[in-house]
Amino acid sequence: MFRMKAAVYVEPGRIELTEKPMPAIGPNDALLRITTTTICGTDVHIMKGEYPVKPGLTIGHEPVGIIEELGSNVHGYREGQRVIAGAICPGFTSHACQDGHPAQDGGCHGHGYKPMGGWRFGNTIDGVQAEYALVPDAQANLAPIPDGLTDEQVLMCPDIMSTGFVGAESANIRIGDTVAIFAQGPIGLCATAGARLRGASCIIVVDGIDQRLSISRNMGADITLNFHEVDVISEILRLTGGRGVDAAIEALGTQSTFESALRVLKPGGTLSSLGVYSSDLTIPLNAFCSGLGDHRIVTSLCPGGKERMRRLLDVVSAGRIDTASLVTHRYALDDIVEAYELFAHQRDGVLKVAITP
Amino acid sequence: MFRMKAAVYVEPGRIELTEKPMPAIGPNDALLRITTTTICGTDVHIMKGEYPVKPGLTIGHEPVGIIEELGSNVHGYREGQRVIAGAICPGFTSHACQDGHPAQDGGCHGHGYKPMGGWRFGNTIDGVQAEYALVPDAQANLAPIPDGLTDEQVLMCPDIMSTGFVGAESANIRIGDTVAIFAQGPIGLCATAGARLRGASCIIVVDGIDQRLSISRNMGADITLNFHEVDVISEILRLTGGRGVDAAIEALGTQSTFESALRVLKPGGTLSSLGVYSSDLTIPLNAFCSGLGDHRIVTSLCPGGKERMRRLLDVVSAGRIDTASLVTHRYALDDIVEAYELFAHQRDGVLKVAITP
Amino acid sequence: MFRMKAAVYVEPGRIELTEKPMPAIGPNDALLRITTTTICGTDVHIMKGEYPVKPGLTIGHEPVGIIEELGSNVHGYREGQRVIAGAICPGFTSHACQDGHPAQDGGCHGHGYKPMGGWRFGNTIDGVQAEYALVPDAQANLAPIPDGLTDEQVLMCPDIMSTGFVGAESANIRIGDTVAIFAQGPIGLCATAGARLRGASCIIVVDGIDQRLSISRNMGADITLNFHEVDVISEILRLTGGRGVDAAIEALGTQSTFESALRVLKPGGTLSSLGVYSSDLTIPLNAFCSGLGDHRIVTSLCPGGKERMRRLLDVVSAGRIDTASLVTHRYALDDIVEAYELFAHQRDGVLKVAITP
Amino acid sequence: MFRMKAAVYVEPGRIELTEKPMPAIGPNDALLRITTTTICGTDVHIMKGEYPVKPGLTIGHEPVGIIEELGSNVHGYREGQRVIAGAICPGFTSHACQDGHPAQDGGCHGHGYKPMGGWRFGNTIDGVQAEYALVPDAQANLAPIPDGLTDEQVLMCPDIMSTGFVGAESANIRIGDTVAIFAQGPIGLCATAGARLRGASCIIVVDGIDQRLSISRNMGADITLNFHEVDVISEILRLTGGRGVDAAIEALGTQSTFESALRVLKPGGTLSSLGVYSSDLTIPLNAFCSGLGDHRIVTSLCPGGKERMRRLLDVVSAGRIDTASLVTHRYALDDIVEAYELFAHQRDGVLKVAITP
Repeated sequence: MFRMKAAVYVEPGRIELTEKPMPAIGPNDALLRITTTTICGTDVHIMKGEYPVKPGLTIGHEPVGIIEELGSNVHGYREGQRVIAGAICPGFTSHACQDGHPAQDGGCHGHGYKPMGGWRFGNTIDGVQAEYALVPDAQANLAPIPDGLTDEQVLMCPDIMSTGFVGAESANIRIGDTVAIFAQGPIGLCATAGARLRGASCIIVVDGIDQRLSISRNMGADITLNFHEVDVISEILRLTGGRGVDAAIEALGTQSTFESALRVLKPGGTLSSLGVYSSDLTIPLNAFCSGLGDHRIVTSLCPGGKERMRRLLDVVSAGRIDTASLVTHRYALDDIVEAYELFAHQRDGVLKVAITP
Repeated sequence: MFRMKAAVYVEPGRIELTEKPMPAIGPNDALLRITTTTICGTDVHIMKGEYPVKPGLTIGHEPVGIIEELGSNVHGYREGQRVIAGAICPGFTSHACQDGHPAQDGGCHGHGYKPMGGWRFGNTIDGVQAEYALVPDAQANLAPIPDGLTDEQVLMCPDIMSTGFVGAESANIRIGDTVAIFAQGPIGLCATAGARLRGASCIIVVDGIDQRLSISRNMGADITLNFHEVDVISEILRLTGGRGVDAAIEALGTQSTFESALRVLKPGGTLSSLGVYSSDLTIPLNAFCSGLGDHRIVTSLCPGGKERMRRLLDVVSAGRIDTASLVTHRYALDDIVEAYELFAHQRDGVLKVAITP
Repeated sequence: MFRMKAAVYVEPGRIELTEKPMPAIGPNDALLRITTTTICGTDVHIMKGEYPVKPGLTIGHEPVGIIEELGSNVHGYREGQRVIAGAICPGFTSHACQDGHPAQDGGCHGHGYKPMGGWRFGNTIDGVQAEYALVPDAQANLAPIPDGLTDEQVLMCPDIMSTGFVGAESANIRIGDTVAIFAQGPIGLCATAGARLRGASCIIVVDGIDQRLSISRNMGADITLNFHEVDVISEILRLTGGRGVDAAIEALGTQSTFESALRVLKPGGTLSSLGVYSSDLTIPLNAFCSGLGDHRIVTSLCPGGKERMRRLLDVVSAGRIDTASLVTHRYALDDIVEAYELFAHQRDGVLKVAITP
Repeated sequence: MFRMKAAVYVEPGRIELTEKPMPAIGPNDALLRITTTTICGTDVHIMKGEYPVKPGLTIGHEPVGIIEELGSNVHGYREGQRVIAGAICPGFTSHACQDGHPAQDGGCHGHGYKPMGGWRFGNTIDGVQAEYALVPDAQANLAPIPDGLTDEQVLMCPDIMSTGFVGAESANIRIGDTVAIFAQGPIGLCATAGARLRGASCIIVVDGIDQRLSISRNMGADITLNFHEVDVISEILRLTGGRGVDAAIEALGTQSTFESALRVLKPGGTLSSLGVYSSDLTIPLNAFCSGLGDHRIVTSLCPGGKERMRRLLDVVSAGRIDTASLVTHRYALDDIVEAYELFAHQRDGVLKVAITP
């Protein structure tokens, strides 16, 4: 039986490259030969044991690859075709999916919702940091890569770009809005690009690393603030003439960024939250106008499915965004443990690493 | 010079009926002879000194009355006409108003927003618990009462009904939704009616007073839960087959109701908050799915303006709701201190009191 | 091989009851034993040859039945269970479906849309006016009937109620709206109920048959107009004080009703169109304010899928609507040709017929 | 008494520069000294007598100027300040305004709507092709010009840019959409920029003049089609793989462009119409899928008010769009009749003319 290499979760603090049998393809699956993948902040949480998965599970949820084999029920694709699939890959038939919440897919039984239920790769099924991976419900999830795009150009589509963009989409940005974005890691940078794509006329971004703030400008930021250098809240209020921003996007997952986002928000504004929090959040009474400020706090999980991927690939193909530049480091799959080491400690100015089996 | 009676804030714990000069009408004002008004929970906060207003200010923000005199710029109304005005009565010309947030009206200068800036009666200008009151920006705020409606039938329109309904509107209820509403005071009861008006097919309401739960059924509730008798969270999850509700409306302003609303909410659902909170709020990490549950938390202040009032009056006139039944007690203006006493202590099953000068 | 009775299209003007082999079930199908179905206006178009289908096709798209057999990929249901399926039963995995337009499902290949592509029963596959019928993509389309509801109580859910309600939903009705609905056949009557469910405070309905207008009142109409007796346009303008209605729903499919709907619509209002037109439409220049009236014209095809059906069944179960009363006549499947005869000629005050195999 | 020069409508075919008394300022007005204005297609309709206005009326509705005097009720501005006002300048207090339709402002009496009622300059009151002009309801309509912007940079804000952008906004464009825009005059060009600002990834524009198509590319178009050279409908269907566009924007006002927009639209798509039509429109049955294609046809009149103007000025100030380049010709007010002559005949590649008193 053929075997393949895969990065698996072993125990808290340990991810290993191991050998596994090739997965057995079912009628609704597609088997991909992974050509490029990457490591996500969530994978680091998994490695550290902060987000529990089953030991032995292959991790990773950002696949770029080539169709090796198609299940008998999967039509309209061909073997050898270059494709991606979203980090979130629901079946799209469940009640939650038909109700407009595919990322919270409760599965086909009953009429339930399951928090983050649409996230399966490297969570509830084997992921894609491997030589091969199965895409479940492939009919709903495979998106062909347009001609002329490299793997690295589309590598952010499955998760980072989809998440960053939805931050701007959920913020309900209108032409002429002023938007503040807290944290400029890969997702925050894509939120910046997303805010630009939705028509914001003043995009203020906040981070503590000048290198990132410099990339922010390429992604569309108008004003960059280093929180080591200025009091961010008073500076944003000053910049907006005391008015506050129309929308604030949180892209880190801490009390501090969440709270700052609320404190610079105008009454009637939207706080769009993308971060993965690790403790209870506090809403300060005064920033919340005692509940009377017509505020909206919206959280969004990365949208998936082939239509979302098609749209993001079109955005890349049309040259509206350059996310290839977020790839700062490259590793062979054989060296993925080393890549985790670098990425987990955020060494060497790393933004995203490309992993090639 | 003519003088009139008015209930004014004196110091924490004390509201008094006093005499004041009749207000001097400006070109954009209307002078109303108040025929009926009522006391709101907010007024009790003011009385207790929890929400500071200037000593000597007339309080109250729910006017039903007769036009005594019209400012020179106010057209399309006539003296002697029966009207109401919303508790929130902005000018509608400011940036915040034109931007869709009249309740957060920042005034005509600059381009600012002011939290709750549209609320003026009994907050930043003299209120309506008096024999006479000025309606500012009357052209934008006076709504004639349709023939055949009594004062008590329309008494909830300026605040309670507008607030309760917006709780359902902001919850984005769709036909067939399951909705949970926490607290069934006057606003919660109107939120129940609002959920019914928007097409919810299962309305679950929660309170600790059986008398209120019995009124809830008249307002449209399908299922009533007394939190003294059942564990509300587990019961709602059981009733929804583990799925959670599509929308939850908070109508009290406490950590407990806010948190319960979030705990029974499905991923992808909306928590619509109406309560006035008096301390920081905590969002529990697990109920919030670590920020990945596609939740929406929306707060809404009572919409005002003559168009909103016209719509609510039409709803009453068409017999879609009976809020006259919420009036449980009646007092003359002369006895308003006694009315505050009863209302502040929620004695004798009081829901709303009608005050008649 | 087992055979069953089915109503098939033969040639223009002729539908016949015939015998066919029992359908062969595929892995994604469910085989239903039909217990009740009905005839739709669309079926009459098919019978007359105005909407071409393949000769020999079983027609009908409104199934109420019992699960006889489940395909191997269909989970979460059991044989013997009472269910319905929507008239529109897409697979929900295509680009069009993921993009929010399941009724225009372009199928799983390419990224196309197909007008009305989600309508398959009695159009592109065998329909349900038969003893047995296959539900395609059953996992996405089967909706269990709540206990205690009769077949006739749920018979309108698959098409008539879903269509009527979407007329109100697409009209973007808000609390306090005035709505005019043109034609009060079964769909128009359900649009009336839908407008009521969305919070309209003044519902004006128009038809030429007094019997229907009398049912309209039971469905929620406030004002009924018989177009034989009044000039409908001037009367509606009079009733609204010259303002026009906030939303107008067209429920017939003629130039006259479409045009009247536009003529009574306020600037800024929505014309929600449900009818199936049979010739080009004319938009009169003045009613359209030369294109400057901020009008919206929205068409909607009946929403389907198990989540929509679940919601409609909940609405029935909660007693929010009684559509069983729309069933005016009952026939055995053996007599379906006679039922078509009656229905096509709208004899004997027929609204809907129940057909029982 | 001081007199000023103004361009007035005399009779069909004739606009003249004449002398008029300076307007008398009321308490809610601002008197502007016009520094730059322009001629709109609508003005040409007026000149030709196709859109009737009162003889002697000053025409023009796109003011850039300096505050000469403020009415006694107008606060927050100062004399000598450079400002613009929208072509649409409602009072914002009427029912229509509070209901979200300021362009259809019915005035303060009753609760009416008036088609295009918010358009007053050069329609129901004296316009701005003059040395001086009154801005009514100035508090709601004056927008200061940010430092560093020239008159020509902001000259398109009052009408052309606001109209073009609303074409994209009403089209409900999402990130990754394909959009077709019919006609690339000044409004169509701004619609192109608007589609880009909303995140469309493929913008296809259609015109018959290559010079305009070349400007289209600068405004954000991806693909330009000259209808003299290709069959536009089949080419757009080919370019979209048969799928049709997500949104089509009509920017001319003819049956041909309207119909083409519908013919290239996917089921479920939106036709956003900006043109001013001069005859009844026909909706072709097949392009409309007999009313079952989930289509939306939306018309929009230029949004006005100071908040809209502030947003557009911010868009210009941030360098998101360069509309100064649309000014192809410049005239003194003294030569306005000559400017009309050129503009009405679309000579010499004219797009917009700047008129300076």
